[in-house]
Amino acid sequence: MKKIAIIGSTGSIGTQTLDVAAAHPDQFQVEALAGGSNIQLLLEQVRQFRPRIVSVGTAGLAEEIKPHLPAGTRLYCGGEGLIEVAAGSDADMVVTAVVGSVGLRSTLAAIEAGKQIGLANKETLVTAGHLVMERAAAKGVAILPVDSEHSAVFQCLNGERRAEISNITLTASGGSFRDLTRDQLSHVTVEDALKHPNWSMGAKITIDSATMVNKGLEVIEAHWLFGTPYEQIKVLLHPESIVHSYVEFVDGSIMAQLGTPDMRVPIQYALTYPQRMSAPGKRLSLAEVGQLHFREMDYERFPCLRLAFECGKIGGTAPTAYNAANEIAVARFLNKEISFLQIEMILERVLEEHQAAAHPDLDTIEAVDAWARKQARQLSF
Amino acid sequence: MKKIAIIGSTGSIGTQTLDVAAAHPDQFQVEALAGGSNIQLLLEQVRQFRPRIVSVGTAGLAEEIKPHLPAGTRLYCGGEGLIEVAAGSDADMVVTAVVGSVGLRSTLAAIEAGKQIGLANKETLVTAGHLVMERAAAKGVAILPVDSEHSAVFQCLNGERRAEISNITLTASGGSFRDLTRDQLSHVTVEDALKHPNWSMGAKITIDSATMVNKGLEVIEAHWLFGTPYEQIKVLLHPESIVHSYVEFVDGSIMAQLGTPDMRVPIQYALTYPQRMSAPGKRLSLAEVGQLHFREMDYERFPCLRLAFECGKIGGTAPTAYNAANEIAVARFLNKEISFLQIEMILERVLEEHQAAAHPDLDTIEAVDAWARKQARQLSF
Repeated sequence: MKKIAIIGSTGSIGTQTLDVAAAHPDQFQVEALAGGSNIQLLLEQVRQFRPRIVSVGTAGLAEEIKPHLPAGTRLYCGGEGLIEVAAGSDADMVVTAVVGSVGLRSTLAAIEAGKQIGLANKETLVTAGHLVMERAAAKGVAILPVDSEHSAVFQCLNGERRAEISNITLTASGGSFRDLTRDQLSHVTVEDALKHPNWSMGAKITIDSATMVNKGLEVIEAHWLFGTPYEQIKVLLHPESIVHSYVEFVDGSIMAQLGTPDMRVPIQYALTYPQRMSAPGKRLSLAEVGQLHFREMDYERFPCLRLAFECGKIGGTAPTAYNAANEIAVARFLNKEISFLQIEMILERVLEEHQAAAHPDLDTIEAVDAWARKQARQLSF
Repeated sequence: MKKIAIIGSTGSIGTQTLDVAAAHPDQFQVEALAGGSNIQLLLEQVRQFRPRIVSVGTAGLAEEIKPHLPAGTRLYCGGEGLIEVAAGSDADMVVTAVVGSVGLRSTLAAIEAGKQIGLANKETLVTAGHLVMERAAAKGVAILPVDSEHSAVFQCLNGERRAEISNITLTASGGSFRDLTRDQLSHVTVEDALKHPNWSMGAKITIDSATMVNKGLEVIEAHWLFGTPYEQIKVLLHPESIVHSYVEFVDGSIMAQLGTPDMRVPIQYALTYPQRMSAPGKRLSLAEVGQLHFREMDYERFPCLRLAFECGKIGGTAPTAYNAANEIAVARFLNKEISFLQIEMILERVLEEHQAAAHPDLDTIEAVDAWARKQARQLSF
């Protein structure tokens, strides 16, 4: 019986993690759940899984949910609540499924408490990869990827030696607007952007897929997860999202992981690793799919991805600024304050102004994060 | 330094094995070589690699080559010679690259001598899989596949548990005639058949690719190599031969091995396993390839493959008869005695007459092999 805690249980990855837990009630016990503001759903989850610790976004929400919780449930809120869920339960493993850099301190707390990490919050590694990987190594804690691309790479590295990697290729569907010209992109709406062709995901990550920022964050995440230099990380357009990513080794052999676009598979793999357990989802039939398509990534068409590589190579706080500016830019787009192409303009301008600090500590990272958000918020067009 | 012996050094796999050895002179030492009748090439190989033991097909050829061998080279011929090359040298590993069931006794001799086997001679497992795997297990000897499909599956199983395999899919290019109708097939010539679209191989295996017997032999080989029931082995048409084969696990995740059609990659992997070493061949660019195609195998179009599954499931001497009848049928086709579609007619008729013996010993296997050859030779149309 594996004991798990989930930070961000009411989001897309959180609910699918609980789907996996529910499918194998003899394998998983849910110890702690942190939701945000959707307390209706959180309450349903609490009634089904009976966690000992629950956390919500704010003190007000805590007051609201309190009368409905089973007796004995420990209730927390805010940043302190995330840390309690991450580090204060008996969980063996913490799934970090919140979106954004808010996941960083709780992930670090979980690592310090010796918990295995099921990492869905890619911003954790993007903003503080050097700190997170250093602490995980020091505590002997495994960081198991939940993202389908990183899970694919992780599976491709099963039984292999990292020194024998020639390069890693992350596949990208191209997002909602992969067939639009730059000119057409200037007119797209929030509603258009939220229609992702393959994956059902939250709003922020769907926009990030359309701008290719998501792939940029994944490139930086892959760099930290697998210790791979940026020169050995490639991105390939693959509209069908069937080949989830692959690794080429020094002998020219390529190992790839394939499947239907079902996030429960990589989530379950992180939860059961190194074992695999049966899963209920639809199986991939390549005969049914018939064709797979691949084409070179276009860094002119997707300048945010080029920026991510640049920030990754600069290192230090550059990826922090990239990520923080993007979080605000996406929020402003979803809020209809700016146009789609102004997301990348915000990124470019904030990064132009940023002086990256090398080997930043957590306070420096949070200061840069706050600065970049402020800059991104202030920019007008 | 790994010491290797090669049975069938002048054939397609044999010469490519020596290419790999030549590319890494600090890694491999060639201890023994068995050629067939191409003594000119064998002599060149002997001069380049200086093996201590050499064997040729017949006593006459031995007389011919003898004066040209370096002093101290031990010379053998015939079946005894194969066994000497397989078991009589200091080699750590024996690559069995002869074509046909002639490879069986020497492979068993190598296993008894405790040599690792780089298995390219698929007929060994087809005709006597139960004996070979039992002896390999008893002697603690690894059977490392050299065939690109089996090497792919073997690589997909790296770090995985065999109990968690859901099924294995061997890909098939479809061979020289994949786009012809059954009617068109009745008129094809030997010259047509020898043009394989993707792989450069010997004549027998090229014909076997066109009839899909090769894939049938591979299905039986996979059954023995990986202990997989026939119900869990699938064949998929994949004209580009880029996905060399794949494994689906119980969680729905698929691991696939991909590459350019270059046999030196799987050969080298067998030689260096569990390590990978750099290789000079062209790298696969999926962006350059652009598209991959897959379609269901058509067992009406390729009855020899259906027959292989049937023989595999019957077990005992049925695969022996299948393989032996095919060897003669292909020889008769290459000799222009019979038409292309008469290859499958010979297989069907010989198998109709065969009463399979369960758990046959080596003598029984050789008797059935001889019987099936005789039957296949006698059939007229």
